[in-house]
Amino acid sequence: MQLHSFREITKNYKAVFFDSFGVLKNYNGIITGAQEAIIELQNKGIDYIILTNDASKSPEMLAKDYACLGFKDIPISKFVTSIMLAKSFLQSKIKKGKIAYLGTEQSAHYIKSTRREVIPVNDLNFNSDKINDVNALVLLDDEGFDWQTAINNTVNLLRMRNIPVVVANTDLIYPMNKNDIAVAIGSIADILEKITGKHFIKFGKPDIQIFNYAYEHISPKRHFKKSEILMVGDTLTTDIIGANKFGIDTALVLTGNTIPDQAEFMIKTLGITPDYICETVAG
Amino acid sequence: MQLHSFREITKNYKAVFFDSFGVLKNYNGIITGAQEAIIELQNKGIDYIILTNDASKSPEMLAKDYACLGFKDIPISKFVTSIMLAKSFLQSKIKKGKIAYLGTEQSAHYIKSTRREVIPVNDLNFNSDKINDVNALVLLDDEGFDWQTAINNTVNLLRMRNIPVVVANTDLIYPMNKNDIAVAIGSIADILEKITGKHFIKFGKPDIQIFNYAYEHISPKRHFKKSEILMVGDTLTTDIIGANKFGIDTALVLTGNTIPDQAEFMIKTLGITPDYICETVAG
Amino acid sequence: MQLHSFREITKNYKAVFFDSFGVLKNYNGIITGAQEAIIELQNKGIDYIILTNDASKSPEMLAKDYACLGFKDIPISKFVTSIMLAKSFLQSKIKKGKIAYLGTEQSAHYIKSTRREVIPVNDLNFNSDKINDVNALVLLDDEGFDWQTAINNTVNLLRMRNIPVVVANTDLIYPMNKNDIAVAIGSIADILEKITGKHFIKFGKPDIQIFNYAYEHISPKRHFKKSEILMVGDTLTTDIIGANKFGIDTALVLTGNTIPDQAEFMIKTLGITPDYICETVAG
Amino acid sequence: MQLHSFREITKNYKAVFFDSFGVLKNYNGIITGAQEAIIELQNKGIDYIILTNDASKSPEMLAKDYACLGFKDIPISKFVTSIMLAKSFLQSKIKKGKIAYLGTEQSAHYIKSTRREVIPVNDLNFNSDKINDVNALVLLDDEGFDWQTAINNTVNLLRMRNIPVVVANTDLIYPMNKNDIAVAIGSIADILEKITGKHFIKFGKPDIQIFNYAYEHISPKRHFKKSEILMVGDTLTTDIIGANKFGIDTALVLTGNTIPDQAEFMIKTLGITPDYICETVAG
Repeated sequence: MQLHSFREITKNYKAVFFDSFGVLKNYNGIITGAQEAIIELQNKGIDYIILTNDASKSPEMLAKDYACLGFKDIPISKFVTSIMLAKSFLQSKIKKGKIAYLGTEQSAHYIKSTRREVIPVNDLNFNSDKINDVNALVLLDDEGFDWQTAINNTVNLLRMRNIPVVVANTDLIYPMNKNDIAVAIGSIADILEKITGKHFIKFGKPDIQIFNYAYEHISPKRHFKKSEILMVGDTLTTDIIGANKFGIDTALVLTGNTIPDQAEFMIKTLGITPDYICETVAG
Repeated sequence: MQLHSFREITKNYKAVFFDSFGVLKNYNGIITGAQEAIIELQNKGIDYIILTNDASKSPEMLAKDYACLGFKDIPISKFVTSIMLAKSFLQSKIKKGKIAYLGTEQSAHYIKSTRREVIPVNDLNFNSDKINDVNALVLLDDEGFDWQTAINNTVNLLRMRNIPVVVANTDLIYPMNKNDIAVAIGSIADILEKITGKHFIKFGKPDIQIFNYAYEHISPKRHFKKSEILMVGDTLTTDIIGANKFGIDTALVLTGNTIPDQAEFMIKTLGITPDYICETVAG
Repeated sequence: MQLHSFREITKNYKAVFFDSFGVLKNYNGIITGAQEAIIELQNKGIDYIILTNDASKSPEMLAKDYACLGFKDIPISKFVTSIMLAKSFLQSKIKKGKIAYLGTEQSAHYIKSTRREVIPVNDLNFNSDKINDVNALVLLDDEGFDWQTAINNTVNLLRMRNIPVVVANTDLIYPMNKNDIAVAIGSIADILEKITGKHFIKFGKPDIQIFNYAYEHISPKRHFKKSEILMVGDTLTTDIIGANKFGIDTALVLTGNTIPDQAEFMIKTLGITPDYICETVAG
Repeated sequence: MQLHSFREITKNYKAVFFDSFGVLKNYNGIITGAQEAIIELQNKGIDYIILTNDASKSPEMLAKDYACLGFKDIPISKFVTSIMLAKSFLQSKIKKGKIAYLGTEQSAHYIKSTRREVIPVNDLNFNSDKINDVNALVLLDDEGFDWQTAINNTVNLLRMRNIPVVVANTDLIYPMNKNDIAVAIGSIADILEKITGKHFIKFGKPDIQIFNYAYEHISPKRHFKKSEILMVGDTLTTDIIGANKFGIDTALVLTGNTIPDQAEFMIKTLGITPDYICETVAG
């Protein structure tokens, strides 16, 4: 397995897309050298985007989180999250009525800016006519609701109302700390899709729509070609295969989900090959 | 679609296996005529078993439930539930240590009679050495625990301990009342299996092990042949296909999951054909 | 179920994306009125694209096919097929070596224009060192090879070479005539993915990359907004859900996969709702 | 990983179930010491069964194959194959008409003894009324037919006739020699089930029905308890998990699918734990 220097390979690109968790930060905070790597890109005039499957946070919230961790001067415009695609879908498709949601009030705040009224699934009253005003359901966050009630309510809602269901993050789990993981909203979505038999609208890596959104964002006038962009990620089945398919080059880093000992085995087993492998973005 | 009289067809059999919900009872209580149908079988000397995917109740508890509903004189020995198979597995395979469980204390009571210590998943202490005493996990009931904590704990338990996981009911949902359904423990099992990548041990229709268990139960010395037994159920994908495969005859009743209007369409779409179709067991 | 006039609804758009089979043509030839519908769009200055999951034909071949059927003057530039995405991927990702393929020589001809050498899977010699020159595999067409040999060869190739596999059409079946259907290359892809455990790169509706490709094609300088485009299709699970997710409006026609009697039931069962339903494009 | 001596552990059992390929034989012939292991069991009065997912061969044919390899004196009665379950199902469920099949004439010969007429799928005439005589379809063998025609014919048959489909082997692949594998009939079954949406009747490990069949076979009067039987296999996901669930003890051997280097990793990844691990049956 040949390792590359991140500094060396980025020389050949005009823009870099970074995954967030496992690439720039982890449960301990900033990954050593990540801040310097970004500053170096800036100094060289290489643009960048932080591209994350996060259904619970707006770019504003992410920018604050990064500032709290110690990253300096990453503007809001550098963040692209899958909730932005969910919002964009709801804005173009849901012209009236309410949007029910699973998640925290904070996560729903961002969706509220579509000017539609939002309501937690657990506050729905199934015996009222108002249930007929619910015109979409969006799955945002794994917190902020009682799961049992929410899942049961959702199943019953989808039996009464034939409405689009938007899943803003297809990840099944997320890391809590070195040893613990938690079940993410993508798992809840899978269970609901299987029970109801309905087809949900899903955003987030590896689906290419988020890569396309980021590309439109960073290069609205196509002054960058796809071949001038590098995706950097720690996960083969989301970051790397998605970016491969989208048509941009890919670098796998070994500071997150894919640990050094297993990288070669995983690449072979899954049949997903990055263009480069780097130990970390700091090197 | 040709309809048959239940009374007529049972003449040809020495034993009848009944599914419970949607066949003998529903959310309103006893299905009209079900009590009389059972009495008539008894009078004719036709044996019977009530065979149910229920991971939360022992035969004792089911017999009490049936008595409360108004069924008279159905002895405990007439009930076969999937929890009996789970218990039997645990008894033969788990020789020491504790059994963790998802479900109510009541549902775990039955498992306790294996003489193993049982402990709710949400009471596990992951920072104690005692976690190493946990030698099996059993999924019993959808109630009695906080879902979010329990699912997260279970995922983490299965990362630390390579132990068998027993699923005592593979149903995804169950009916609450005419309009509402609830998510059953089988759905939780699916999500956990997908996240962990592990293979669980699953009991309950359509798997044939529960049919075999009932057969051993009713005919330990093989005085009944399989061809002398009729399975009666309301669900094509569990009762009917499972019994077909087990090699006994099948009758679909239209008092539960398969409603009269859709029976023919469902049979055709799923490719699952019962030997008989009866409107109800009372006829 | 409210039916709309195709003529009326297209007034509100600047471009129309048509699915091909079941919308403009079927196994009998041109769908009545389809030619006139296209001419009318042209006269009104509404642009259009024919957007099809076809892994076996280049735009040139499709234009010829349409001309043979009797459609007049549909230029090559109006066709977007999923093989164009496969080719584009191979051009950007496979810099050297050979590309193995499943399909007819004719279908491979188009891929050859990537300037890579192409070779049928059934001509591979597994005992020669030349197997190491194979740097990609592309699944094009269900014809042109002996299935048993080809599937076995492919499985063995993917055990020896860790290379990207491109699936240029994810459809499972396609219609042959009123009564018969045939198994499409998408089914072969599924079986191969399951056996090998590898993740393939898949193009074609409902994945949004083909919609995006068509959008770039018709509106390279973004002079059309997404809200000014209408997708017309006969299949809910490909044409309609894909275009919904991509963010353009959708019209279901009832001249193909979704027959009038079942349209309402299918929409409800699948939870996929078009913006409009039209009997046909001719009306 | 603790290794056990096969000779030592079998002392505690009254009967042993052997998987065939990878346990007693492989593509080179008899696995070293396998013949002696069986003779030793016989001398000690321990009964045995050879239990294999083989949809193409009757016990008679298997006994001949074993004799050709050099195994001496293994009577026909010692073989249990999944085709026996398929035959048993067809005998009890299909009272008249024809049985269509995929596979060689040789494999169909065994099914013929049900006294039903059998016909290869590729010989069906869809334009004749005789198609209505076809009352079951059985998938036997991956050879003996042109795949493309057969799969297309099967899909069309299942659209015309709502009949049970029996799959006599759920394995996806089988080994050809040290480096090559071939696609098994189980893979064809999966593709057909997905395309048609129908539920097939499937026999073969890990499903417990074949274990139960072997148990009835070896212990018709229950003179052996389940706890007195040991299953020996080389595959965790079929032999071991199936026998675990059936309630008998299990020994994994490392002469087939599970190679010594990966055994511990596979056990952990899949969450399937054998009671014993032996390098080989000869030790």
